[in-house]
Amino acid sequence: MTTVGVLGATGAVGQRFVQLLDDHGEFDLSVVTASPSSAGDSYREAANWGLDTPIPEETADLTVRATDPGAIPDDTDLLFSALPSDVGAAVEPELCEAGFVVSSNASNERRADDVPLVIPEVNADHLDLIDVQRDQRGWDGALVKNPNCSTITMVPTLAALDEFGLERVHVSTLQAVSGAGYSGVTSMEILDNVVPHIGGEEEKMETESRKLLGEFTGTEVDDHDAVVSASCNRVPTLDGHLENVFVETRDDPAPEDVAAALADAPTLDLPSAPDPLIEVFEDPERPQPRLDRMRGDGMAIAAGGIQTTDTGIQYNCLAHNTIRGAAGASILNGELLARDGWL
Amino acid sequence: MTTVGVLGATGAVGQRFVQLLDDHGEFDLSVVTASPSSAGDSYREAANWGLDTPIPEETADLTVRATDPGAIPDDTDLLFSALPSDVGAAVEPELCEAGFVVSSNASNERRADDVPLVIPEVNADHLDLIDVQRDQRGWDGALVKNPNCSTITMVPTLAALDEFGLERVHVSTLQAVSGAGYSGVTSMEILDNVVPHIGGEEEKMETESRKLLGEFTGTEVDDHDAVVSASCNRVPTLDGHLENVFVETRDDPAPEDVAAALADAPTLDLPSAPDPLIEVFEDPERPQPRLDRMRGDGMAIAAGGIQTTDTGIQYNCLAHNTIRGAAGASILNGELLARDGWL
Amino acid sequence: MTTVGVLGATGAVGQRFVQLLDDHGEFDLSVVTASPSSAGDSYREAANWGLDTPIPEETADLTVRATDPGAIPDDTDLLFSALPSDVGAAVEPELCEAGFVVSSNASNERRADDVPLVIPEVNADHLDLIDVQRDQRGWDGALVKNPNCSTITMVPTLAALDEFGLERVHVSTLQAVSGAGYSGVTSMEILDNVVPHIGGEEEKMETESRKLLGEFTGTEVDDHDAVVSASCNRVPTLDGHLENVFVETRDDPAPEDVAAALADAPTLDLPSAPDPLIEVFEDPERPQPRLDRMRGDGMAIAAGGIQTTDTGIQYNCLAHNTIRGAAGASILNGELLARDGWL
Amino acid sequence: MTTVGVLGATGAVGQRFVQLLDDHGEFDLSVVTASPSSAGDSYREAANWGLDTPIPEETADLTVRATDPGAIPDDTDLLFSALPSDVGAAVEPELCEAGFVVSSNASNERRADDVPLVIPEVNADHLDLIDVQRDQRGWDGALVKNPNCSTITMVPTLAALDEFGLERVHVSTLQAVSGAGYSGVTSMEILDNVVPHIGGEEEKMETESRKLLGEFTGTEVDDHDAVVSASCNRVPTLDGHLENVFVETRDDPAPEDVAAALADAPTLDLPSAPDPLIEVFEDPERPQPRLDRMRGDGMAIAAGGIQTTDTGIQYNCLAHNTIRGAAGASILNGELLARDGWL
Repeated sequence: MTTVGVLGATGAVGQRFVQLLDDHGEFDLSVVTASPSSAGDSYREAANWGLDTPIPEETADLTVRATDPGAIPDDTDLLFSALPSDVGAAVEPELCEAGFVVSSNASNERRADDVPLVIPEVNADHLDLIDVQRDQRGWDGALVKNPNCSTITMVPTLAALDEFGLERVHVSTLQAVSGAGYSGVTSMEILDNVVPHIGGEEEKMETESRKLLGEFTGTEVDDHDAVVSASCNRVPTLDGHLENVFVETRDDPAPEDVAAALADAPTLDLPSAPDPLIEVFEDPERPQPRLDRMRGDGMAIAAGGIQTTDTGIQYNCLAHNTIRGAAGASILNGELLARDGWL
Repeated sequence: MTTVGVLGATGAVGQRFVQLLDDHGEFDLSVVTASPSSAGDSYREAANWGLDTPIPEETADLTVRATDPGAIPDDTDLLFSALPSDVGAAVEPELCEAGFVVSSNASNERRADDVPLVIPEVNADHLDLIDVQRDQRGWDGALVKNPNCSTITMVPTLAALDEFGLERVHVSTLQAVSGAGYSGVTSMEILDNVVPHIGGEEEKMETESRKLLGEFTGTEVDDHDAVVSASCNRVPTLDGHLENVFVETRDDPAPEDVAAALADAPTLDLPSAPDPLIEVFEDPERPQPRLDRMRGDGMAIAAGGIQTTDTGIQYNCLAHNTIRGAAGASILNGELLARDGWL
Repeated sequence: MTTVGVLGATGAVGQRFVQLLDDHGEFDLSVVTASPSSAGDSYREAANWGLDTPIPEETADLTVRATDPGAIPDDTDLLFSALPSDVGAAVEPELCEAGFVVSSNASNERRADDVPLVIPEVNADHLDLIDVQRDQRGWDGALVKNPNCSTITMVPTLAALDEFGLERVHVSTLQAVSGAGYSGVTSMEILDNVVPHIGGEEEKMETESRKLLGEFTGTEVDDHDAVVSASCNRVPTLDGHLENVFVETRDDPAPEDVAAALADAPTLDLPSAPDPLIEVFEDPERPQPRLDRMRGDGMAIAAGGIQTTDTGIQYNCLAHNTIRGAAGASILNGELLARDGWL
Repeated sequence: MTTVGVLGATGAVGQRFVQLLDDHGEFDLSVVTASPSSAGDSYREAANWGLDTPIPEETADLTVRATDPGAIPDDTDLLFSALPSDVGAAVEPELCEAGFVVSSNASNERRADDVPLVIPEVNADHLDLIDVQRDQRGWDGALVKNPNCSTITMVPTLAALDEFGLERVHVSTLQAVSGAGYSGVTSMEILDNVVPHIGGEEEKMETESRKLLGEFTGTEVDDHDAVVSASCNRVPTLDGHLENVFVETRDDPAPEDVAAALADAPTLDLPSAPDPLIEVFEDPERPQPRLDRMRGDGMAIAAGGIQTTDTGIQYNCLAHNTIRGAAGASILNGELLARDGWL
């Protein structure tokens, strides 16, 4: 078994990590950290457990540690980071310097030239950027990132459609409140309402997509040429980001070609990797967040509403934002790190 | 005073007509119709009044009539139609043949060559198609349509931006449940959910927009050249359609030019016409359905989130779907018909 | 294996039966019925599957039968009824006369003197009313009922507290929309709203509770003396009925005595029976519908907020209304029927 | 005109005060205070205006002052307090000592023997406690409180029913999220959920009700004898508290007697006082929060679902929690203070 820890384990994403790591076949969760005020408490006390499955008993009994290199046992093989980005920016480099491998969901350094930004089914080869990273930063450890939740939802579909020549992407998102964390969206903001703006989200989708779809040359990643314009909305759903995607393509594929390309997207043989990666629906009313966010145990992308336009195609896609879009994404990256011998 | 009636007065849109016509300065509501089973009842009994203002007392005491030319007094100057499209398709032509002028929200015949599809602030001149219509159909009456609620929300903004050369439009809608009528969306469909499809809606936005923005030659309307691709979603809001619009333009306007063009859109001097037509917000989190749907008493368009892209501009717009998008739209068309001497 | 069927298998409760019977260790689902218009279709076609787990493949391939004694194979050991009460009233007696044993969720005949109304953990002995029933009606089959969803939520707690001398019950319910079926509550009725009335529900709670808590004398059930007054509300939750209960008791138990009585409620060794029957929370903010409705796989009762008053006690209880409150309740009754040799 | 100020004017209740005081016929709002960090800003800048009507322009241009006796002009006739209770506890006595009359919605000191807790239509005579207060505390000013929002909703109905001999009250509340302030309830807590506990609320209902219904002897208030047991729930509605009330009465009134007693509750001739005070609905599905919270411009109580039980009566009542239940309540108390010559 690989010994793992979760940094920032008491927040909304941290709890999702703890839930997903319970009974994981390869990872043994033995370290949970939180802010200094919680250090020393049991996880049961420190976490105000808010998921709809019971708190995992073994983790509940762990003592919460400070999020600090000195507080984490040296033999912890892999750390998952659910830290806020400002804390991540401060602590993750220290941990990597101290020799830890960190698979992080925090947004800091996602765009850094020597930090791999990875969705295993899309760009597993970018992991080799770790060599460049270690070289440049003198680290024994490593820092690997997964993209933002709204980006992850779309990019596997774009990767599957790149064979038709991606040229231009317009995307509107309908994002669930859990993406903002437990207290990120108040009830008075969102009941009977939509908020048509999520700070920084549009830029993340535009830049992270191009890096993920880019080509790793051996020393760096060349961004994909396609321009992405995003419009991001918060809607009154709990979990599951739905996205309307319009893609202008070089070729002129028929809807059935598009459906086939999505349905046949390559999958990986990793514990958390879904098969198929993308579930394609014929019913134009699907996918829907509540009905389809748990496809593939929350790790699959659901797609539907495929149509052609005069300049390309349009379709909808959906993923569970705190599983495939956050905690599950980091865990899958961790499984890839383990398989490829980086731990 | 102009004597008016409402066809289909007991449904969700019909009730909105009744609410808006209460205390209207120029229109006197004296006729309400419904399905044969309600004919003879008082409106109070027939309508299961569901709006959050009390039922207007004078209308409550009216006796409901059948939706039938023979049941409507000849001296009714103007009829508003809140009929379902299949009923409208059967009854509206009969009424026009019998000499009534009908301002209709029903979707039947919106695309007919000789039926004016009108938003007064956008294409008031299309009303002259009535001469063509009377000529071709031999009617003494007239049939005028307002567009679909999702189309009305966007088209005033597109009209204001046409000075920059509209070439291509991508739009995603986040539509309120009231757009589907009182029983159109069940609670189990929409709580904690989004439905990414509204039957026929995308096609309506694509075709109606081009007709509205088209040029009236004196005998027909030449559709605008811009291609519109729409993706329509139902979200858990009660009223107010929010739309994310991406426009490719010939010119390259700055955001402040776009804002000025929207804010300066021409207004009309009609009782229900808002001034300004378009309220422009600087705060990127606005407009929001719950906070902004009642701007201009529900008749204004709210816009915000203006940004430029590499090929044009993107922004959000919002309107109250059962006021500006349905009942209020027909009433405004009725006011235009009165002003221009068609009654 | 016991061969079972589901009557009315395409509705909201019918689908829940199909979901729960998938992979049931003792029951093999081989018959699904629906209205005549669906007979002959595959279940996949006939059901517009609306649950958030995939449709069970084996059931999906079954051919839907008419809800009619002649259409159901004689060797079907047990029928579960998810029929509307008017259809149940017409068909269930015919089926029982034809020799079938029917475990029914439909509300018809729940109050009939010779029809057992059963929650296995509360009044399993009432099942012996079947002898009376067969005697009086000349049936080879049998008809057994589970109570209404709002009643099931409360009665196991009342049974556990009867040791303190139940004298008077006031209860307010906060009921989920799924209790009204897929189309029972429209979105316009319930978004940003509460409906403080559910037709017939209050009377069901008042009469069914007393029968369930009553004593079976060998020939009939003597209702419990305690008077129940209920006030029933529909709230914007999907699943899970929450109830505020005020009980006047003969004795004067301390809160910890109440908690212990609830936590120690007897359980049964049946496949669907949860253990514990009642999960007691110390946190006064629990139970909550979304977080706690799936306790015991949706079959447990959750309780909390225990306080004493000057005349007795008050507390909250919660159960999943379409599992413990409907389909799961009938299945549990079926398991009891099987164990006790009635099939 | 009476010159008034609002303490804590930028919060959710503070904004409601500002909205309601716009165009008030007798009160001229000229002072707004907030926390020190906002002092010196315009109200437009300091308030993140969140109501669905535009910010009143005159108030928007006021300069925000610190909530401090020294910062408030001496000639301010009346101060409304929308302060949090801890701030209210610190500042309100200072202001009263400095000679200001404060009509406060804050919960501090509501139970103090010499502080009038007033609903004008219920216990206007309790205002004479001010003489006792001034005597005991040596103040030139005065402190008057309105009760908690959930209490205000119920007490006018109890007062109207006291003629039948109130003996015991059980009440369950279904309270809107706005009652907790703008950020009090997160979206993740309440979407598809109910929270069956509101800290301190049950005790407030139990004690405040008895004081409001109590008798003023000239020197003190003797609490009413009736015991109140409350169970308080937060539900996913924006505004409007709905309550299920069970009352045990000495007499045995028929439902029509109850309806008449409620409908005939005495009203007052004050600018914000509704007439009737209590609107009684025959339809058992009414009142509903979204449809009925704005009755009487948000100041009326709506009641319905009247039934008799073996020990008394049960019914539902509803009021707008931030108008009748908070800001409007304080303003109405202010109007009473003005009428009775206390300013």
